[in-house]
Amino acid sequence: MEFSSKLLENAVYEVSQLPGIGKRTALRLVLHLLKQPEQRTSNLATSLLDLRSKIQFCENCHNISDTVLCEICANPKRDDALVCVVEDIRDVMAIENTGQFRGKYHVLGGKISPMEGIGPQNLKIGTLVDKVKNGVIKELIFALSSTMEGDTTNFYIFRQIEGFEIKTSTIARGIAVGDELEYADEVTLGRSILNRVPFEGSLRQD
Amino acid sequence: MEFSSKLLENAVYEVSQLPGIGKRTALRLVLHLLKQPEQRTSNLATSLLDLRSKIQFCENCHNISDTVLCEICANPKRDDALVCVVEDIRDVMAIENTGQFRGKYHVLGGKISPMEGIGPQNLKIGTLVDKVKNGVIKELIFALSSTMEGDTTNFYIFRQIEGFEIKTSTIARGIAVGDELEYADEVTLGRSILNRVPFEGSLRQD
Repeated sequence: MEFSSKLLENAVYEVSQLPGIGKRTALRLVLHLLKQPEQRTSNLATSLLDLRSKIQFCENCHNISDTVLCEICANPKRDDALVCVVEDIRDVMAIENTGQFRGKYHVLGGKISPMEGIGPQNLKIGTLVDKVKNGVIKELIFALSSTMEGDTTNFYIFRQIEGFEIKTSTIARGIAVGDELEYADEVTLGRSILNRVPFEGSLRQD
Repeated sequence: MEFSSKLLENAVYEVSQLPGIGKRTALRLVLHLLKQPEQRTSNLATSLLDLRSKIQFCENCHNISDTVLCEICANPKRDDALVCVVEDIRDVMAIENTGQFRGKYHVLGGKISPMEGIGPQNLKIGTLVDKVKNGVIKELIFALSSTMEGDTTNFYIFRQIEGFEIKTSTIARGIAVGDELEYADEVTLGRSILNRVPFEGSLRQD
């Protein structure tokens, strides 16, 4: 694409560096901003700069937070002994939306992925192992995605905490509520049969 | 969506105001920026702020430009008498890519659209009429999209310049090169039959 303006070209280039946004979409977004009042662009730019420079991470669970301890970790009603290990803040938000979890979280910040150059040292695994060693945690729930990277990360953490008296579990994999069996993949359907639950229990809403 | 951080919520809100970007996509983009070096975010923010505050429009054709006259208008090899009327810079870029047009452009900045509150006074129609009155332009090519708004704008401009000695034309509508007739809509196919061209001419590449 040839641009009539270096400023425009520069802005389009920067926007197109975002994931899933190509040059054409970037041009559309930038032209939209040009048609809007200047205030809109400065609000957008300031909010991004503020976020990047002022953001804090909770010192206990490493979730994004505006304070030293995040709201969940600071809540005395939540169970310190039950910790859910997740990849990032989106997973925390998703689990919080269910209203089914009253423990705390530990946000790893990613998964072990040699392809992307992410090793255990890039993730917040050390502090999790420390918490286990201190004996605060009684049960650890692994809620990482069930991909090769997720399984590797689960296994790595599991090996690190072997020998400590602690229960470990992973979230249940199975047919989604409302889905037809016919369209489920074999692995999911297979696991849902292996991990079947007593009938009364499955109807109970805890 | 409930966020654990006001800064994050604010950034996601601002990004989700862009067209075609919802809250989830905005969150994904913002989290991506958080994982990148701080320089990336400041580059993005600066390029947008610079664009919005320093951008100029060519005083002849109103295209986006870094100088008072854009490159196309400043090029003495291009024909002043042949002017192509387009909606915005994307159309200029598309036509320039073909390499078939050696005249100049006039960028209206939109189409007349009562639904969106855009009237003739919001577009650069006055300066186009002035150029016609000054007798510089010999032929005007309307290259607006063939929608209700595009046709209205074409007709409005046509009425404004009625009576002046000037040729007006619109770009040809017809079956796209490589398309099957079977899948073409009736209006396009009908127009392509009405506006048929001599066989030798259609093969010539000017």
